[in-house]
Amino acid sequence: MSFYLSLDDVPDLARGAAILGTGGGGDPLIGRLLVEECLKNGKKIEILDPTEIDDDDFVIATAMMGAPTVVVEKVPAGSEAVRSLRALEKHLGKTADATIPMECGGLNSMIPLVVAAEAGIPVVDGDGMGRAFPELQMETFGVYGVSGSPLAVSDENGHTCIVDTGQDNQRMETFARAVTIKMGGAAYIAEYPMSGADVKRTAIRNTVTLALNIGRTLRKAKDKHLDPLAELSAFLKDTIYGHGTVLMRGKIVDVERFVRDGFTQGFATVESFDGGHEMRIQFRNENVIAHKNGAVVAIVPDLITIVDVDLGTPITSEALRFGQRVAVYGISTPAIMRTPEALQVFGPQAFGLHEPWVALEELSAAR
Amino acid sequence: MSFYLSLDDVPDLARGAAILGTGGGGDPLIGRLLVEECLKNGKKIEILDPTEIDDDDFVIATAMMGAPTVVVEKVPAGSEAVRSLRALEKHLGKTADATIPMECGGLNSMIPLVVAAEAGIPVVDGDGMGRAFPELQMETFGVYGVSGSPLAVSDENGHTCIVDTGQDNQRMETFARAVTIKMGGAAYIAEYPMSGADVKRTAIRNTVTLALNIGRTLRKAKDKHLDPLAELSAFLKDTIYGHGTVLMRGKIVDVERFVRDGFTQGFATVESFDGGHEMRIQFRNENVIAHKNGAVVAIVPDLITIVDVDLGTPITSEALRFGQRVAVYGISTPAIMRTPEALQVFGPQAFGLHEPWVALEELSAAR
Repeated sequence: MSFYLSLDDVPDLARGAAILGTGGGGDPLIGRLLVEECLKNGKKIEILDPTEIDDDDFVIATAMMGAPTVVVEKVPAGSEAVRSLRALEKHLGKTADATIPMECGGLNSMIPLVVAAEAGIPVVDGDGMGRAFPELQMETFGVYGVSGSPLAVSDENGHTCIVDTGQDNQRMETFARAVTIKMGGAAYIAEYPMSGADVKRTAIRNTVTLALNIGRTLRKAKDKHLDPLAELSAFLKDTIYGHGTVLMRGKIVDVERFVRDGFTQGFATVESFDGGHEMRIQFRNENVIAHKNGAVVAIVPDLITIVDVDLGTPITSEALRFGQRVAVYGISTPAIMRTPEALQVFGPQAFGLHEPWVALEELSAAR
Repeated sequence: MSFYLSLDDVPDLARGAAILGTGGGGDPLIGRLLVEECLKNGKKIEILDPTEIDDDDFVIATAMMGAPTVVVEKVPAGSEAVRSLRALEKHLGKTADATIPMECGGLNSMIPLVVAAEAGIPVVDGDGMGRAFPELQMETFGVYGVSGSPLAVSDENGHTCIVDTGQDNQRMETFARAVTIKMGGAAYIAEYPMSGADVKRTAIRNTVTLALNIGRTLRKAKDKHLDPLAELSAFLKDTIYGHGTVLMRGKIVDVERFVRDGFTQGFATVESFDGGHEMRIQFRNENVIAHKNGAVVAIVPDLITIVDVDLGTPITSEALRFGQRVAVYGISTPAIMRTPEALQVFGPQAFGLHEPWVALEELSAAR
């Protein structure tokens, strides 16, 4: 069901998007402030249910590209993100009827809302990642045949590049990344221009609402002094994600972190409060695999989020510290993200892992 | 005067372009082979005198971008260069009436001829560098107000980027360079879209003919056993370049070469045959400054070319070796390349030199 986003929704959406960021994706804070500014200025943000898009409508995905940490120093004014949309529209000679998030996790849950408010178009309630992923080819749009390019990437000076690599979304990522780095490490993109029919066929549906409801659930649990993660698991049961579970509770006893190939990589080790179990979570921007006492308990594309054990507040890979009391929380992904085609693009191998993908709920059942 | 290039012209043009490459710019050989192939296949290459262009004509500069050494391993089929032209035309919704070389020195003297043959349009007899330079903002087109962008850069897979940085040609260079590197180090560009009136106002005129006649002069001198450099100086007197002179003859006694910031940099030291004088030539891809016994005798943008002392054959910075018997030859640049605006873009400071620019003919007269 379509609806207009209210000012009260925004903190909930940001909280939920941080959970779906699975350790990466960037803090939604800056995006949240931009969205709130839009709403305070009387702009409307319509969240459009995918079933209500016309097949012939023209939709463009929008996002921030680059290092979220840079955005904190190079705070966007709000107009940057819409510039790429305009540049791509101009290049294609066609105006977008709606925008759609590239990813629903982290900062990029917010950027399309700003674009929508500025451009006066709705945001489709869905996305191409169903969480946060680090690269542009890792989108269900591309998995199911939509070409990511032409893509527009632009910076705060109004400089723009249009990247066209035909069906090769991996090369699109490469070229757009190279330009983004030269743009100072953070830029704004418009990509995967597609029809409403393509959106219905390839998007992960209602993930804006999902993030909003995750945030709402956590807030209400806190207000009512309920266990936030138990509430979250109860909520997820009725979504396309289905399964959410606490993988372990404990204390962070070791963090090993390094930047390689442009990714924040490393490991966090969590010891259970009773001292009897150890969990090792590997991250590559996002958390990609969790081993408990040496056995895999969750693996990408399923979600692994480390949260504060009492509040349910997500902790990003950069913010992990020795001594934090955390829960490691797993969320299964919807069917559209688990096909062989999808796993080829954003399954374990795409992150350099050798372990085969096994569904979170199967791993949970086996424990 | 406009004319059609003949098969016999091509080796002369390549020889002359190598002189104007001033140690960089890449060996014209691969380009020469492509041009000869076009002519053998019955394609026509019209060299259009700038005075014969209509003010309203639409002209696009074309070139190879990247490391000329890569081109030897990634030999182009000929169609790559025209693809960027087509991509830029499509982006602008406007078809080019002619192309113009970005630079008349080195490999890029040839690429626009291939584009012209493939696209069935003439090549303007002129260019934007009057020699070889390493970067895209170093063009008289830009010096005199033509915007370099939108620029199209494309690779052998048909992947394309359109770079638009408004009036900022330095940023255009930065973004196009980043993409070129990801394209494997060599790509093809179409840039500085402009009117015929702009061409007349900003191009260095008749430099295709200049390269052709330099090559012809050297060939004829060799055939007639005349001193090639004396003949070259006699020929240059009647051109807009005016002054060509042997700066020293001698033996290379030292070469220091390293790659830094993406440039082949270093020094060559030449000792005069009588042992009484020493010349030190600094290069940064192209030769940029020559000191004789410690005093500047030639400085960029004036041309410094090291040639085989007997044959007048140019030697590139990469091919310099201990023991080579060479002449160091200087050529003054035309007035359009010596204005304060021009010197700001491609004068000594643009190459990291602290010495002020002094005209070659003044330095020659002072000796």
